[in-house]
Amino acid sequence: MRFTKMEGLGNDYVYLNCLERTPPDLPELARRVSDRHFGVGSDGLICVCPSEQADFRMRMFNADGSEGEMCGNGIRCVGKFVYDKGLTDKTTVSVETKAGVKVLELQLGADGLVSAVTVDMGAPAVEKPRDITVDGRSYTVTPVSMGNPHAVLYLEGIDGLDLPKIGPGFEHHPSFPNRTNTEFVEVTDRTHLRMRVWERGSGETLACGTGACAVLAATASAGRCERSAEVALLGGVLRIRWDEADGHIYMTGPAVTVFEGDYPYGSDQ
Amino acid sequence: MRFTKMEGLGNDYVYLNCLERTPPDLPELARRVSDRHFGVGSDGLICVCPSEQADFRMRMFNADGSEGEMCGNGIRCVGKFVYDKGLTDKTTVSVETKAGVKVLELQLGADGLVSAVTVDMGAPAVEKPRDITVDGRSYTVTPVSMGNPHAVLYLEGIDGLDLPKIGPGFEHHPSFPNRTNTEFVEVTDRTHLRMRVWERGSGETLACGTGACAVLAATASAGRCERSAEVALLGGVLRIRWDEADGHIYMTGPAVTVFEGDYPYGSDQ
Repeated sequence: MRFTKMEGLGNDYVYLNCLERTPPDLPELARRVSDRHFGVGSDGLICVCPSEQADFRMRMFNADGSEGEMCGNGIRCVGKFVYDKGLTDKTTVSVETKAGVKVLELQLGADGLVSAVTVDMGAPAVEKPRDITVDGRSYTVTPVSMGNPHAVLYLEGIDGLDLPKIGPGFEHHPSFPNRTNTEFVEVTDRTHLRMRVWERGSGETLACGTGACAVLAATASAGRCERSAEVALLGGVLRIRWDEADGHIYMTGPAVTVFEGDYPYGSDQ
Repeated sequence: MRFTKMEGLGNDYVYLNCLERTPPDLPELARRVSDRHFGVGSDGLICVCPSEQADFRMRMFNADGSEGEMCGNGIRCVGKFVYDKGLTDKTTVSVETKAGVKVLELQLGADGLVSAVTVDMGAPAVEKPRDITVDGRSYTVTPVSMGNPHAVLYLEGIDGLDLPKIGPGFEHHPSFPNRTNTEFVEVTDRTHLRMRVWERGSGETLACGTGACAVLAATASAGRCERSAEVALLGGVLRIRWDEADGHIYMTGPAVTVFEGDYPYGSDQ
């Protein structure tokens, strides 16, 4: 089974071309390939499938075999996958996901391949800041929905934070009944933000696309940054722009092909 | 650059055929490919090279780019690599390593490919048990050298041990000036042992070939098991046999090809 390993800000998936044929039992395949010692090693499996509503359909499976809705870093690589492999010659590509149809703008590098992708991430819902107490300390957090829940807070010295210690207190705080992703932010200047993220159910990760969008929305709403800024995460930098006309957030970031491989599975095992 | 990802008991390396041509800057290549989010993802890089003293030479680089001496799980996969790829038709293969020439016995499966490999791990040096105190508690440990240092101890309920908490106390104990690998062992019966390992410099790992040999040597020396036994580690099972005639320990275990890949590097980037 031919596959492509790709990553966006260190968020890495095994990508399969399922336009003509889909391997059996995708949850089992996702568990197998994701294993970092006995398999290919990835955060999950992404299948590029035909769609009746859009140019392509993306199905995403987490490392535990569960099917996910959408992944900002993953969908950028879908854009690179379909263009670089000649599955489309368009540079504006629509992709059906479980969270709706997303539109990608592909940017080409000097080699004629996709180097960066902009994703329309939709409109954020920014709530008023509120004070919550975690581990006996009071924090001011700004709740933001990007379809999924986020809590944004500002601290000096995010590099020194012990996230495994304090993250769970935010994730499971009673004021977030569905649990929350939490972003710990430093404002460098009006166009540069730095963040670390504690993801609901995953712990600290290298990058979270919706988290970076939530951070820009919260910070711009508070008048502390412009509507377009670079957000630096552990895995790399995203450019986030909050369009005044349509109210949507546009996320631009890299998409990288790491290697091509052949994995024995099903009939070709 | 064509590569093969292989694993033995979950100890996984990227394998390269360097018989005719060697990529430049192997330490840098090892660091790149080993990265589990931005690279192929592995415990390191193993290059199969020509040798003047043996059938092949194995060079092994850790994920940090440092060159290692030998790896029991890695060298089994070298045996599978050279036979399955038709680089030899012998089933007794000698391999030069930084720890000397090792001899492999290859076992073939029904598909005609190598399914398991036996490695002559040399003679162990078992010292007398001694009592040491770690975190205020007294333990009886048996020091064993397999070329590298081990401390073997017996406990009931190894599954519940908090190794990240207690492992460093053994590793850095003043009675082991070069630090030590530590094996936590349960004797199931006279031919079945179970162990977890805290590796010097690495923490808990899925498997440690020299550690399993040290455990058999210590346990058989104490008369608590036979000279041939199965040792179950987190990553799988090894069969360990301590030969009475030559005093050497022979380790038999699986070698698995996970997938084949192409990684852009150097002139083919």
